[in-house]
Amino acid sequence: MKKLVIGVDIGGINTAFGLVDENGDLYAESVISTKKYPFMEDYPTYVEDLCRAMRSLADSLSFDYELVGIGIGAPNANFHKGTIERPVNLWKYHENESDLDPSRRIFPLAQDIARYFDGTHTLITNDANAATIGEMVYGNAKGMRDFIMITLGTGLGSGFVANGRMIYGHDGFAGELGHVCVERNGRECGCGRRGCLETYVSATGIKRTVFELMAKMIAPSKLRGTAFDDFDASMVSVAAEQGDPIALEAFRFTGEILGRALADAVTITSPEAIFLFGGLSKAGKYIFEPTQWYMEENMLHVFKNKVKLLPSGIQGKNAAILGAAALIWQEQASAE
Amino acid sequence: MKKLVIGVDIGGINTAFGLVDENGDLYAESVISTKKYPFMEDYPTYVEDLCRAMRSLADSLSFDYELVGIGIGAPNANFHKGTIERPVNLWKYHENESDLDPSRRIFPLAQDIARYFDGTHTLITNDANAATIGEMVYGNAKGMRDFIMITLGTGLGSGFVANGRMIYGHDGFAGELGHVCVERNGRECGCGRRGCLETYVSATGIKRTVFELMAKMIAPSKLRGTAFDDFDASMVSVAAEQGDPIALEAFRFTGEILGRALADAVTITSPEAIFLFGGLSKAGKYIFEPTQWYMEENMLHVFKNKVKLLPSGIQGKNAAILGAAALIWQEQASAE
Repeated sequence: MKKLVIGVDIGGINTAFGLVDENGDLYAESVISTKKYPFMEDYPTYVEDLCRAMRSLADSLSFDYELVGIGIGAPNANFHKGTIERPVNLWKYHENESDLDPSRRIFPLAQDIARYFDGTHTLITNDANAATIGEMVYGNAKGMRDFIMITLGTGLGSGFVANGRMIYGHDGFAGELGHVCVERNGRECGCGRRGCLETYVSATGIKRTVFELMAKMIAPSKLRGTAFDDFDASMVSVAAEQGDPIALEAFRFTGEILGRALADAVTITSPEAIFLFGGLSKAGKYIFEPTQWYMEENMLHVFKNKVKLLPSGIQGKNAAILGAAALIWQEQASAE
Repeated sequence: MKKLVIGVDIGGINTAFGLVDENGDLYAESVISTKKYPFMEDYPTYVEDLCRAMRSLADSLSFDYELVGIGIGAPNANFHKGTIERPVNLWKYHENESDLDPSRRIFPLAQDIARYFDGTHTLITNDANAATIGEMVYGNAKGMRDFIMITLGTGLGSGFVANGRMIYGHDGFAGELGHVCVERNGRECGCGRRGCLETYVSATGIKRTVFELMAKMIAPSKLRGTAFDDFDASMVSVAAEQGDPIALEAFRFTGEILGRALADAVTITSPEAIFLFGGLSKAGKYIFEPTQWYMEENMLHVFKNKVKLLPSGIQGKNAAILGAAALIWQEQASAE
């Protein structure tokens, strides 16, 4: 009988899910709102509604299949415990409540979903780790035992694979390259510290860089016509294509910071390849070329010209669902 | 029958080796000179003499045992290939020869030794990785699946363990935290780049810091009486014990740089503990306290107060031999 997995991608706005086979083919998909359930007391209803929608999708297929598991990608997910812990964008306290007991903000999502599905094997990890496993199971990292995945969205996520296995770390939260400090006393980060990699290398990061460059440079630029609040990172790619000097310098600078950080990361895990995934990576040569150049320029001799910098092979609208489903497929494959 | 392993520690000056059981007990040890064989054409004689000395030590035991393997720790060792590649301090070209073909400088040591010992299983890795496995098999990392080992000698070596396995990386050279860049355009490093962690955090690093501080500070200090060439890092510990302001500031600064670098490394592998081993770590609280403080100060929230900073449990004169032997024992244990 055909085997399928439900992959679930939980974002701050929507939760998307779909039925996926081991080749990465998607048989059905659906979505519910996450934003509709903003507060802690909404969490049980969210789980109930999500499970009901998943069940209904699962029942909609016209052929028989075995549901072998449910894989979930979500922010602040703890792989070892199956929980979502203190998420910034999900299930907050009411505004008039103070966050006095942060330990209350731990949501046992894997267990709650498994219970609804009669104990179906359920795994959860953060979105970047899910994308990493997706790359390993369906993408360009097939057969690789050591690689790094960089997911470029609003922030910068990452996943590290060594000896063919995802590095979850002791507490289940490993792979936060976006919060390596690249500039002491640098840009303020949402995490409360300063100079984190993602404040420079991400959609938000390149936008901040453009505004810094508008102050630093005198070259005319179309980008000067848009207010910060109305500015979208995709405008930088469009401007770069037209030869805009500020856009081109913004990409060069972003690539320099990323390239340096990757050269450092390589000294730790010595990967075969590094994959760039998500928004900023779609800028192609504008981001790949400077990143590659500065990575090699700053590389320790023994690693020079060894590490491939490659585009993700799972780029596309279903990558997050596929990645979440891959959590289960990868485990099945390594158990065989 | 008792099972034993030969552990071999190859340094630039001496090669020490001994017979070790799975509990880390050393039954016999001996040493030959490495320095006596400085050039490439000396390598076959070195291997021959080393094997003969190992054989003679192995034959000296008064009881029967099974030799289950030979583990070697050496600079620039490639675990995957069993080779030593382009070592800086071993088997050079003659001075009048130029290093035109660096690919010639690859020495298949594991294979050469195994051949002499009738195919006995032989593994090689760099000294820091060997110490890391020693910590895992005999030391304070017993039972830990995720940890980092920092070896502080003339330079800074490191070993990363994730999911219970050593990270060797795609090319076999992973774990070079000493060459993470901590200061752009910082101190010159032996590797040809600038600002590497080990130029600050190592015996040589703290010595360089002391000389920088003698220029920066005006406080009187006993350390001002010794020339750079005569200066030994252990003098800084002695001076710190006596409250010397330059020595104390040197340790604080060293701990700051190391603590920041460790906070960054934690974001990648999220270890249960970090172990400090070797020379500088013997300064105890002078190095541990500032390192711990700056590590926590710079730690991403999710990892705060989770990662233990601990002294190595294999500190002592035989650590390198034990670590090398542990390469074999660890493999035996994971095969069971």
